[in-house]
Amino acid sequence: MKISHIEHVGIAVTSLDEAIPFYENLLGFKCFAIEEVEDQHVRTAFFQVGQTKIELLEATSDESAIAKFIEKNGGRGGIQHVAFAVEDGVANALAEVQEKGGRVVDKAPRRGAEGLNIAFLHPKTTCGALLELCEKPQ
Amino acid sequence: MKISHIEHVGIAVTSLDEAIPFYENLLGFKCFAIEEVEDQHVRTAFFQVGQTKIELLEATSDESAIAKFIEKNGGRGGIQHVAFAVEDGVANALAEVQEKGGRVVDKAPRRGAEGLNIAFLHPKTTCGALLELCEKPQ
Repeated sequence: MKISHIEHVGIAVTSLDEAIPFYENLLGFKCFAIEEVEDQHVRTAFFQVGQTKIELLEATSDESAIAKFIEKNGGRGGIQHVAFAVEDGVANALAEVQEKGGRVVDKAPRRGAEGLNIAFLHPKTTCGALLELCEKPQ
Repeated sequence: MKISHIEHVGIAVTSLDEAIPFYENLLGFKCFAIEEVEDQHVRTAFFQVGQTKIELLEATSDESAIAKFIEKNGGRGGIQHVAFAVEDGVANALAEVQEKGGRVVDKAPRRGAEGLNIAFLHPKTTCGALLELCEKPQ
């Protein structure tokens, strides 16, 4: 697997309306997109920081992984995942991880925010962190 | 405040000896340094991924913020903080945050891993995420 850089860092927040002003006014970032990803029950806001995006994630229903993360985190937001840009295909990367005995959450890439192909590795394999692999579709 | 990029992402692990092989063998990264930061009671391992480093953090005592993070996280590792590289001085950035009504953990920069000047913002101000500002000392 060839990873070129960190594509984004996913940060769970209880409210985009409260969080976006912090990232814009205190850190000086500019929100360039807000997008709802219906099948993941989230609304996302993106900021570019060098090579990497900050993706703020707000739950739109209790079914959302973000709602569960915030509940487990005592009702507070926090850093939920890190996504690595894979150069030689997410499907290949998933196969490689499993061949080497690792566990994955997604057996095949699925569509995420910004139209990326994404897949999550299993936290049991990553020593606890929620790590995503992603690529632009061809 | 001028932030150029994400300097590193800090990931808490229960054991560097277990985690380093995952990052090397499954993700293909190369650990380029292992360092103990005594006053933070941590041992760290670094990997370069594009512009950004992954910093794995293992607690060396129960007093460590990493030990507390892991305890709160049900005994598991996870993504603990994101560190932004500040171009115009961490001290200036801390002053700016406070002038704008934000809270900080560190009132002045202190020395972190790799000899960087670092300071943490207060999670109440950041909507939950633990965010660090850092710079190379001049």
